[in-house]
Amino acid sequence: MITDERYPVEPWVIRELGFELATLAQSESIFALSNGHIGVRGNLDEGDPNGLPGSYLNSFYETRPLPYAEAGYGYPESGQTVVNVTNGKLIRLLVDDEPFDLRYGTIEHHERILDLRKGLLHRVVEWTSPAGQVIRVRSTRLVSFTQRAIMAVRYEVEAIGDAARVVVQSELVANEEVPRQSGDPRVAAALTSPLVAEQHSASGSRSSLIHHTRTSALRMAAAMDHVVAADTDPDLHTYVEKAFARTTVGTRLQPGQRLTLTKFVSYGWSSQRSVAALRDQVDAALSAAVHTGWDELLVEQSEYLQEFWDGADVQVEGDESIQQAVRFGLFHVLQAGARAEQRAIPAKGLTGPGYDGHAFWDTETYVLPVLAATAPRAAMDALRWRHSTMDLALERARTLNLQGAAFPWRTIRGQECSAYWPAGTAAFHINADIALAADRLVRWTGDDAFARECALPLLVETARLWRALGHIGADGAFHIDGVTGPDEYSAIADDNTYTNLTAARNLRYAADLAQRWPDEAAALTVSAEEIASWRQAAEVVAIPVDARTGLPEQDRGYNAHERWDFEATDRDGGYPLLLHAPYFDIYRKQVVKQADLILAMHWCGDSFTAEDKARAFAYYEQITVRDSSLSACTQAVIAAEVGQLELAHEYLREAALMDLHDLEHNTRDGVHVASLAGSWLGLVCGYGGMRDHAGQLSFAPRLPPALTGLSFTVRWQAAKVRVTIGPDAARYVVEDGVDVTLHLHHHGQPFTVTSQDPVELAVPPIHPLTDRPTQPAGRAPTPTPTSPS
Amino acid sequence: MITDERYPVEPWVIRELGFELATLAQSESIFALSNGHIGVRGNLDEGDPNGLPGSYLNSFYETRPLPYAEAGYGYPESGQTVVNVTNGKLIRLLVDDEPFDLRYGTIEHHERILDLRKGLLHRVVEWTSPAGQVIRVRSTRLVSFTQRAIMAVRYEVEAIGDAARVVVQSELVANEEVPRQSGDPRVAAALTSPLVAEQHSASGSRSSLIHHTRTSALRMAAAMDHVVAADTDPDLHTYVEKAFARTTVGTRLQPGQRLTLTKFVSYGWSSQRSVAALRDQVDAALSAAVHTGWDELLVEQSEYLQEFWDGADVQVEGDESIQQAVRFGLFHVLQAGARAEQRAIPAKGLTGPGYDGHAFWDTETYVLPVLAATAPRAAMDALRWRHSTMDLALERARTLNLQGAAFPWRTIRGQECSAYWPAGTAAFHINADIALAADRLVRWTGDDAFARECALPLLVETARLWRALGHIGADGAFHIDGVTGPDEYSAIADDNTYTNLTAARNLRYAADLAQRWPDEAAALTVSAEEIASWRQAAEVVAIPVDARTGLPEQDRGYNAHERWDFEATDRDGGYPLLLHAPYFDIYRKQVVKQADLILAMHWCGDSFTAEDKARAFAYYEQITVRDSSLSACTQAVIAAEVGQLELAHEYLREAALMDLHDLEHNTRDGVHVASLAGSWLGLVCGYGGMRDHAGQLSFAPRLPPALTGLSFTVRWQAAKVRVTIGPDAARYVVEDGVDVTLHLHHHGQPFTVTSQDPVELAVPPIHPLTDRPTQPAGRAPTPTPTSPS
Repeated sequence: MITDERYPVEPWVIRELGFELATLAQSESIFALSNGHIGVRGNLDEGDPNGLPGSYLNSFYETRPLPYAEAGYGYPESGQTVVNVTNGKLIRLLVDDEPFDLRYGTIEHHERILDLRKGLLHRVVEWTSPAGQVIRVRSTRLVSFTQRAIMAVRYEVEAIGDAARVVVQSELVANEEVPRQSGDPRVAAALTSPLVAEQHSASGSRSSLIHHTRTSALRMAAAMDHVVAADTDPDLHTYVEKAFARTTVGTRLQPGQRLTLTKFVSYGWSSQRSVAALRDQVDAALSAAVHTGWDELLVEQSEYLQEFWDGADVQVEGDESIQQAVRFGLFHVLQAGARAEQRAIPAKGLTGPGYDGHAFWDTETYVLPVLAATAPRAAMDALRWRHSTMDLALERARTLNLQGAAFPWRTIRGQECSAYWPAGTAAFHINADIALAADRLVRWTGDDAFARECALPLLVETARLWRALGHIGADGAFHIDGVTGPDEYSAIADDNTYTNLTAARNLRYAADLAQRWPDEAAALTVSAEEIASWRQAAEVVAIPVDARTGLPEQDRGYNAHERWDFEATDRDGGYPLLLHAPYFDIYRKQVVKQADLILAMHWCGDSFTAEDKARAFAYYEQITVRDSSLSACTQAVIAAEVGQLELAHEYLREAALMDLHDLEHNTRDGVHVASLAGSWLGLVCGYGGMRDHAGQLSFAPRLPPALTGLSFTVRWQAAKVRVTIGPDAARYVVEDGVDVTLHLHHHGQPFTVTSQDPVELAVPPIHPLTDRPTQPAGRAPTPTPTSPS
Repeated sequence: MITDERYPVEPWVIRELGFELATLAQSESIFALSNGHIGVRGNLDEGDPNGLPGSYLNSFYETRPLPYAEAGYGYPESGQTVVNVTNGKLIRLLVDDEPFDLRYGTIEHHERILDLRKGLLHRVVEWTSPAGQVIRVRSTRLVSFTQRAIMAVRYEVEAIGDAARVVVQSELVANEEVPRQSGDPRVAAALTSPLVAEQHSASGSRSSLIHHTRTSALRMAAAMDHVVAADTDPDLHTYVEKAFARTTVGTRLQPGQRLTLTKFVSYGWSSQRSVAALRDQVDAALSAAVHTGWDELLVEQSEYLQEFWDGADVQVEGDESIQQAVRFGLFHVLQAGARAEQRAIPAKGLTGPGYDGHAFWDTETYVLPVLAATAPRAAMDALRWRHSTMDLALERARTLNLQGAAFPWRTIRGQECSAYWPAGTAAFHINADIALAADRLVRWTGDDAFARECALPLLVETARLWRALGHIGADGAFHIDGVTGPDEYSAIADDNTYTNLTAARNLRYAADLAQRWPDEAAALTVSAEEIASWRQAAEVVAIPVDARTGLPEQDRGYNAHERWDFEATDRDGGYPLLLHAPYFDIYRKQVVKQADLILAMHWCGDSFTAEDKARAFAYYEQITVRDSSLSACTQAVIAAEVGQLELAHEYLREAALMDLHDLEHNTRDGVHVASLAGSWLGLVCGYGGMRDHAGQLSFAPRLPPALTGLSFTVRWQAAKVRVTIGPDAARYVVEDGVDVTLHLHHHGQPFTVTSQDPVELAVPPIHPLTDRPTQPAGRAPTPTPTSPS
């Protein structure tokens, strides 16, 4: 458990005081640096000790067979697992023959600081070796947002007290030992020695290693170069062999003297390019970075982030830990997506090997709405990645005897990698999630090229899938039977409300877009008849209602199922349920892992009345256990909407502190990017009440008791809109745009705001329609501390 | 495909003319001999060529890990696979240095005859060696019903034309090479070299091999001895080593001279007994068999079968192929169960490695009703086996967080071995199948010891399971949600009618039996309150009805699902569907693999009106594809009941000829014991209309146009009842009993028959309530040939 004592709350940095082996792996995820293209965990410079060493290249994976004791038609035969690639972070230090290792000697001071505005990870250590020599090490690490192939470290050693012989070894190491993963099915299977050496070379202070993976046949190159500055005249020597490269710098430092090593590392990878081409690519990237120089890299990094924060920052008054957490969350969301550039945004970003490094639906549903409003280019790129895998999705649909495109439940490259179809293939909602994300981007950016080239084909092929997947029954309604919705504690159900509603929108928006771009639609062989059949299905989509209560229900017949016996479930050891009860029993009972109907009420909120939302929320609260990190933020959003503001804040805190407090006990495997995005959603869509139903941007701001103010910015088409919320009123300002006139809604009332005239509107009172909802025994969220920290 | 030309139809034998490599594996299953304790496939004496070598010991298996790409709570970690044990059938022959091998030289004559009355497999070969030497080989093989550890072969070589040097090598061979199985998930995974040598010995013409399995740690011994008779004075020599034992007999035969070798083989196995104990056990069994002698073994065998056929034979007039097939079926059912003696009766008996050698629910549902009426001791033994695994079933229920006993979906020893829970663990109906089979045996045999010791605990612990599995909903009905019924093309459904009806009977009969045996019930801690809760649940069990049509439906909401697109399914290559479509798509549509609601209409027929049965049968016929061998016989039974007699006969023929005509193309892996039992069910429960609802034996005889007469015998309590059906009337005779008075029903009317006075009653006309039902495109049964063959 990471505590506030060791992680004091500060608005713009994550600071860790002291050193603790037990939480090392978690801290490595929290301090991971990435630009979406490459990512390195926050491992200590010296490599040892470590929780889980990790360096990742987006979409660089190894395939492995997926075993089935009883195979079935259409089961994927091979999976993809992210590979821990050549470690370029490593800088070992020898002090008077004594390896610098925190497990020995005495740690006088240890501090790490993740600077969210500068995009840097700082470390300061003062250490007394077992022999009594005192040294100070300062390091600063960055993964460049501007030069996507580049990681760099400035490493400084200073002798204190006595003179010291110091040797610094800067390395590239392939096939590091990775600790064995746990038996938890959610933790990714480990791979050992995935890299096969192809070429190694060294010259001066520069060296490179080229490897390929055995089965997926991907090739990668890593190269490093060094700049040394010292108060003395150090020796420098570089050695390379197949598995590692090492530049050694040795000198003798008098007290107060320093040795400073600046290390530049570049990565390149490809499924097609030759050894020579990759070698040249990483050398070129390295030369550019060395030419840029350390100081200028820092400037670029800072400017890039300044631009981001200008349009993305959220200011929270009244809860400092949420202020910190939402910035930490936005920073990791940016790190995951900034330079992914038509590669996937995995559930853990590039911060750890969790979920095998796969991307899921939560990218489109939780992460892209945040990027759409804060870094729209990254969001469009993520969907262009989906579009680039269209051939695989079309083929998968054919394998499943369906029409259109069936995107994979979990994947790195685009092939379906889910080995458990009831919670994989059957979760077809991912196709609507992708389609609606594309449609959202069209509305938010107004980017016609994106609409034509990317959104239209995504919407058309997924609409085709839905039309083939559903059927119009004898009751005249469009039914989608036997699918799995977002709640993974229910599966293979008929008429999942979330699925049906998002599929209907998918069909309708596909029809809209096809009519808007008739030539491009014709090129996709879309006919007027097909468009009509999409509209018809969307029109009559089945929305199950519990006949006894009149409430919407998660799936047809769901509310008639037996309720899980929460009282009989061990509050401490009994969760997550999936580790303690068979799927069989979980699926057939009323117990919700994560928001499903409630998620529909967020993204398709205009399909429900306010009363339905309030009453259904109260009903589902009683059976929702939040065994998924994707739940609390959505519960926060709907709790806020229905006026349960204290409850909303408890859920918001849970989502926002998921990784900083390691609430799911698996932050070691990487941060929960979607939940981190969820803290933004909870603030902006919850307290800001922001919705974009039918392309209409609307707000319904209302603060919880814990907050005294909230301010955020969203990029809407050509403009930036800043919303500043106080206890009684909200102020809307258009920034950046010239002569912009926006037609927005405030608590259901249309209003106009221009770049000239900000608008301030009163927050109306709300009278909740239900008492504060209750949760299953032991599963209520943690109350907000009276003095939030 | 096995054709009538090569398998001419004869009433009491299965005769194969000629030799064909392509159908060798199928013929090995058809000609397999077994007594339920040991079983040997019909491999050629000389071992090569073979389709699939096989020798099996009941419940002798190896465990293997069950791999999961994504594991889950409660998944079985290891499976059990039947082991091909030490081959004792092998007798090689060398003729003038030329191995006798049918792939070389010229086959002048080849004939095999399975004599169903004598329990013998005969073979006659006349063969010209490549060098031109002509020999005749006759062999007769038996697996003794009376000496359960014993197999014996009489092998005779005769020189024809010229004098010949002949060498006969009689062997025991461990770890034979087994061909690699196909990729079909239904075909069992092969195991290589499962046996580890422990001891081998030889003395005179006797030798033995003792081995154990690597992981399951089961020990087995095989021993052989020989008696040689010859017109010459042959040499005999025995050699043994770890992997094989060999007795060699060599001589020179003048034309017309014969060498006759009688080989006795005994098997023993145990999980506990020592090497020495097993060695002595097989030696003793061998000594007993040698002492008995070949001729006397044949007499014992014949007498055993005479006794069986006296009470079991079915006489069919008008369809000779069905006459042959039903006897073939009964013979294999007897072979599977006769001496299983508290071990499992696998789906393939001991005739092949199909389904890994596992036993499933079809033993209780299809095989035991036949044995109950024809060989009740074997049926009771099979349930005593289930009872012997009670500890494992109780433990499994605890693992699943349930009460009572959860018997395994597939197993050899009793542990759950199903690696796919939607069609394994979720198929809870197996528990009712076992319970109702036990209850049936109590009613049919009147055996109080069995009732108290076996049936009562089986019924009580399964009733407890159902009570925990189901719940009484807000509508006041007892619902069982999220289970899989017999139809494996539907899964994890609510209120499966078959499951609910059989569970309700399970609950009611458990209550009845507990009240009949209060002391024994008290020992199982059954309380009056518990009994009341069973009765209450049974009373209000939910029976789903399609609101639109008023018809019963397979599961709640089933009839509202989309119908499978049969027209778009390739009639030739598209079936079985599970090899060509994902479970996802199959489960959510109306397509039935095998009788489910229709099966409920057979075993719980008194829960439906005649009109419901006729109309629901017609409805489900339209969507039933019979991708399981368990379907046709049940469709025959209900088709007969609703007066669709031509259709009934087509289904009956399909069930009866399943293996003789290799209709499912997998007879190579072993015969379909349940389908073979189904041919009896089709005749007796179909045309005989026999039911035992509520312990009342009733008949509703009616012949299809293809038959002119039908006669069968069932053992009912102390008596045998012979029913002889003609086109217009049926005659009931009590046999074997003295002063027996039976109260039976004939077409719904009660009547009394005594051992003194047979009764003849007229067959009333029937007016079917629907037209002849239709089947999915291309899935209608084959019309009965106008001249049945």
